[in-house]
Amino acid sequence: MRVVFLGTGGTYPCTERNVVSIAIQLGKEVVLFDCGEGTQRQFMKSNVSFMSTRWIFITHYHGDHFLGVPGLVQSMNLNDRERPLDIYGPEGTEELMSWLIQAGYFAPGYEIFAHDISPGDMIELDGFSVTAAEADHSVPSLAYSIEEKQRPGKFNAARACELGVPEGPLFSKLQHGETVEVDGVSVTPEQVLGPSRKGRKVVYSGDTRPCRAVVDLARDADLLIHDATLLSDEERQASDFGHSTALAAAEVAKDAGAYVLALVHYSPRYKDTDPLLQEAKKVFPATVAPSDLEEMIIRVRH
Amino acid sequence: MRVVFLGTGGTYPCTERNVVSIAIQLGKEVVLFDCGEGTQRQFMKSNVSFMSTRWIFITHYHGDHFLGVPGLVQSMNLNDRERPLDIYGPEGTEELMSWLIQAGYFAPGYEIFAHDISPGDMIELDGFSVTAAEADHSVPSLAYSIEEKQRPGKFNAARACELGVPEGPLFSKLQHGETVEVDGVSVTPEQVLGPSRKGRKVVYSGDTRPCRAVVDLARDADLLIHDATLLSDEERQASDFGHSTALAAAEVAKDAGAYVLALVHYSPRYKDTDPLLQEAKKVFPATVAPSDLEEMIIRVRH
Repeated sequence: MRVVFLGTGGTYPCTERNVVSIAIQLGKEVVLFDCGEGTQRQFMKSNVSFMSTRWIFITHYHGDHFLGVPGLVQSMNLNDRERPLDIYGPEGTEELMSWLIQAGYFAPGYEIFAHDISPGDMIELDGFSVTAAEADHSVPSLAYSIEEKQRPGKFNAARACELGVPEGPLFSKLQHGETVEVDGVSVTPEQVLGPSRKGRKVVYSGDTRPCRAVVDLARDADLLIHDATLLSDEERQASDFGHSTALAAAEVAKDAGAYVLALVHYSPRYKDTDPLLQEAKKVFPATVAPSDLEEMIIRVRH
Repeated sequence: MRVVFLGTGGTYPCTERNVVSIAIQLGKEVVLFDCGEGTQRQFMKSNVSFMSTRWIFITHYHGDHFLGVPGLVQSMNLNDRERPLDIYGPEGTEELMSWLIQAGYFAPGYEIFAHDISPGDMIELDGFSVTAAEADHSVPSLAYSIEEKQRPGKFNAARACELGVPEGPLFSKLQHGETVEVDGVSVTPEQVLGPSRKGRKVVYSGDTRPCRAVVDLARDADLLIHDATLLSDEERQASDFGHSTALAAAEVAKDAGAYVLALVHYSPRYKDTDPLLQEAKKVFPATVAPSDLEEMIIRVRH
């Protein structure tokens, strides 16, 4: 599970960073969270192919979060995409995408499905699910959790040997949840696997004031990616525009018991994001402030 | 008159270059020709402020030529723009801009006027005019000429002295076309100025096959910026998709008697544009192949 910060800036792009977009690679597939203007070119500068994007989740309809969709969709077409693309977002997604995607003389040669989703909805992907929660912004806005399905428990090889299972392909079958037969006797996965383990989980707040729904969504997340538009000396302004300070993001991560916090959506006023990082680290030491195109590998913790 | 190549690529962006957009600075004002996705960030990386853009001319409605408009318009708003913005383009401009600009939760705090224009139309700007011609592309597409109004003729200082005009402010008045009075006798500009001189002229073809209308529009231009999507060994493909080869662009420049040719809209397949440049130079030696963010100053030749 690889997280690529294609863009980390908020409001509008600046020379230092593009507007926000986060690609999460799961095997060969990519789930894209938000897609501001210029996201396709950020993809091209990264190690992830934009053609791998199978699902797009938009948090809300402010320009810095979605204006890269039509260009991305058109470039996929120019590169002979055949498989479908699903775009999810809050209310208005289906209607907006119906015309935005076809702006100008363009009709896609592959299927694009746009879906309105609501807080609480869970979308099943291949081996993963995405759950939406209601963020606290100035327009309808969703936070998203992407969570791996339960992983099988640890394999007890010694126990399997005791039950007469020979090392080799039958071990693998048991590890993958299949019952095997040895000398006419069945051996079930339950006999040789420990309790199933929690899958990896990444949560992205989108634009939001600090709020309970994101704390709940981010409970025990391996990575929380949170709005950190301003420093806490601008808390009033952050709140007025529906955003969080870096300090507030750290408090959300702490309350949620997240493992790592990544700050994003920095205001273009900050050329250097270190003050935001330092502010957050005082409350939540496991904070990072990624730059554009930085990557994180999420490993299994349990 | 400064020409800034904000983006020089065609079809879709690549790591080497953004899609096409050309800013022409006239004093404090900027006229923008085409505005592909990511143009606002290219502006930020250049020496020209995106806030200076007063007029935008779109050649046609393929995504690589206009998808940067909504982001640019929104960033102008976020930076407290007050003065109006005029957007010109071929048929469909007014209708398209009416919804594209307001995509998502956005309403501009300044006036934006969108105008459909037709081949042959001439738009008067401050001291300049823009004329549209019909390009030969796969969808309705305009080529544009931007031309400085006639400049006054050369000032004959010796003749002015003979007529008794003292050097100083009265010289300046005569040079700017005002009649002055010396010892009760009128001296007119016509007495001291040579024949008026042709203004500077830059022509941008947009996407087009080589065509007569662009040759005519580019007659005696100081700079012709022309579609050079492919090398001449791909002439058939260029023509099928409504584009020109670098060689064909050079032939257009030669036929038009242009002073300098700048190639643009290179296909993303070319990492290095030198082969395109070399091909064009064989026919038209005064050819350049600008990279993104390169600038040219257009000086008065006469």
